[in-house]
Amino acid sequence: MVENGNLRVSLIIEEVGEFVVRKLRIVSSGSYIPKKIVTASEVDQILGLPDGRSEQMSGVQARRYVTGETTSQMAAYAIMGALEKSGLKFEDCDALIFAGATTEQPLPCTAAIVQRALGKMDSKVACFDIDSTCLSFVTAMDLAASLVDSGRYKRMIIVSSEIASVGLNKNQHEAYALFGDGAAAVIVEKTPENSTSHAFIAHMETFSEGAYTCQVAGGGTKLHARQHTRETEDQYLFHMDGRKVFRLVLEVVQGFTERMFKNTAHKLSDFNWVIPHQASGSGMELVRRKLEIPKEKYIDILANHGNMISASIPLALHQSIESGRIKRGDKVLLMGTSAGLSVGAVGIEY
Amino acid sequence: MVENGNLRVSLIIEEVGEFVVRKLRIVSSGSYIPKKIVTASEVDQILGLPDGRSEQMSGVQARRYVTGETTSQMAAYAIMGALEKSGLKFEDCDALIFAGATTEQPLPCTAAIVQRALGKMDSKVACFDIDSTCLSFVTAMDLAASLVDSGRYKRMIIVSSEIASVGLNKNQHEAYALFGDGAAAVIVEKTPENSTSHAFIAHMETFSEGAYTCQVAGGGTKLHARQHTRETEDQYLFHMDGRKVFRLVLEVVQGFTERMFKNTAHKLSDFNWVIPHQASGSGMELVRRKLEIPKEKYIDILANHGNMISASIPLALHQSIESGRIKRGDKVLLMGTSAGLSVGAVGIEY
Repeated sequence: MVENGNLRVSLIIEEVGEFVVRKLRIVSSGSYIPKKIVTASEVDQILGLPDGRSEQMSGVQARRYVTGETTSQMAAYAIMGALEKSGLKFEDCDALIFAGATTEQPLPCTAAIVQRALGKMDSKVACFDIDSTCLSFVTAMDLAASLVDSGRYKRMIIVSSEIASVGLNKNQHEAYALFGDGAAAVIVEKTPENSTSHAFIAHMETFSEGAYTCQVAGGGTKLHARQHTRETEDQYLFHMDGRKVFRLVLEVVQGFTERMFKNTAHKLSDFNWVIPHQASGSGMELVRRKLEIPKEKYIDILANHGNMISASIPLALHQSIESGRIKRGDKVLLMGTSAGLSVGAVGIEY
Repeated sequence: MVENGNLRVSLIIEEVGEFVVRKLRIVSSGSYIPKKIVTASEVDQILGLPDGRSEQMSGVQARRYVTGETTSQMAAYAIMGALEKSGLKFEDCDALIFAGATTEQPLPCTAAIVQRALGKMDSKVACFDIDSTCLSFVTAMDLAASLVDSGRYKRMIIVSSEIASVGLNKNQHEAYALFGDGAAAVIVEKTPENSTSHAFIAHMETFSEGAYTCQVAGGGTKLHARQHTRETEDQYLFHMDGRKVFRLVLEVVQGFTERMFKNTAHKLSDFNWVIPHQASGSGMELVRRKLEIPKEKYIDILANHGNMISASIPLALHQSIESGRIKRGDKVLLMGTSAGLSVGAVGIEY
């Protein structure tokens, strides 16, 4: 690379294919887990089920529920953890993405409220939200890869913070047994000269045949909060048709990975780690077997946290980095399914 | 550029600066405007104001309200218009961004519901939402510029569809007089060889001091729909502290443009057109004077449509392209303020 006045001349040699290599490096990560633990036995009691039934359905032994913490407070704590780890200040970042499904308020975007919760009202850091439900973090990583690689932003915070517990329906045992609350964050930047970190594959597909298989119907423009009554209250809670989701995922997931890897130099077995969305015990096992991913590569934190919507994948990533399982240079695939129904993945060298 | 086997060698000469040039071209645009017209006089009657008062406050002579149309249906119509204009099929695009503040349901993301409304359940087109309230379209254009430029997506649909009318509060005269419903869409792709279109500047800043100056407090995780009562109902409607917004915008907007243009070869007077968010008559005039933008360059569709949240900027863009005002080669600045409070802009050569 030569710089002459305000002209820069670069010689770029790259592999050609259907995939895109983008200079993205995870600087650090953080998380916030609510203190209140709700065990599978407690869920059995709440739902009036025989002891052991909810764990058997979901694979979840315990999860956390907020007791007063807000979405933005949890997000702020997760970000503070990531900042502390890296030694960076909030102002060293120029964008904050809230990537999640359960927003704190309908308006404004939750990222702005998180900036405020951090006490960084004067930081000018750009705040916006990305939502692809359970895949929101993966989508945000995918977008951030192009944004930092292109130089649009220098260093970005992505935070997923979800309060699932507020929308659970006691008549929906399967879903009730599954979900938990919490938050996780990463700081990403354009890969510096001394690092080989990058994002080397990404793919997303939406199959809206399944748009209503997981949904909260009420609370948007179609069914306003003012229409909430005893008769309609179920529509303002989470509804999941587990069997339909299962069938649709089974139908599309293998084709998805085939299309993702087509015309690329990569394959699933190249990855040191696969971090799946922690959808459910049986769902995760279904996908693992279908794609023939060895158990020891498949990161599973479901038993202790449940399905934390978009916060599951970054929490599993954070815990795996913290524990030393995932090391610099490892190839990691973040991959999941989400309401929509969507399948999405981003492959990185950490 | 030389290709040899699967290696590509490119010599890239680029201007160096704080700005980023990204290959983005708007292929086509479309819109959907509800049939029901609500005049300023009708608003005066609804609010019990003397005739002429609501127009005087807002600058809005008429706006449209939905009568049964949903967010996703309006979005689908706007997209169909853009597809028809370009001769493209939905499947020729590989991503659909719903960029907006008023989602159809809390879950799943509205983009997936739009894919379904288009009857394209088998298209596999990736669907996700971006929300920075009134700036959602601008943020989505900004993100799409990096995504298509990096090759992550080939061709993307961005649609903004807003139903403001469902959340208006009759006790908030200023806001009630201001808002309307509608949708607009664009299709964008990486600039082909025969075109000079590109995005050459973009900037966004969030000042969360103003996070609650425009808000809908109820309906998210903090204040669930189940807490909606006669006592709390106002909190589930749009609330705007017009004076505070005004003051904060006045305080930050000039510094914003200075920081945006700093260390770049560009300045505000280079633009043929500025498309501001159609916030309010007085708000738009305030920004125009403060930034010394000539009236003839400043695109204003407020009188006929009101503030359509995120759909205002793409509708003004679409109408200006349709009418022949904006021509290929013109430099256009999309710029606005939004709840958050954020200021954002993207500058393109159309």
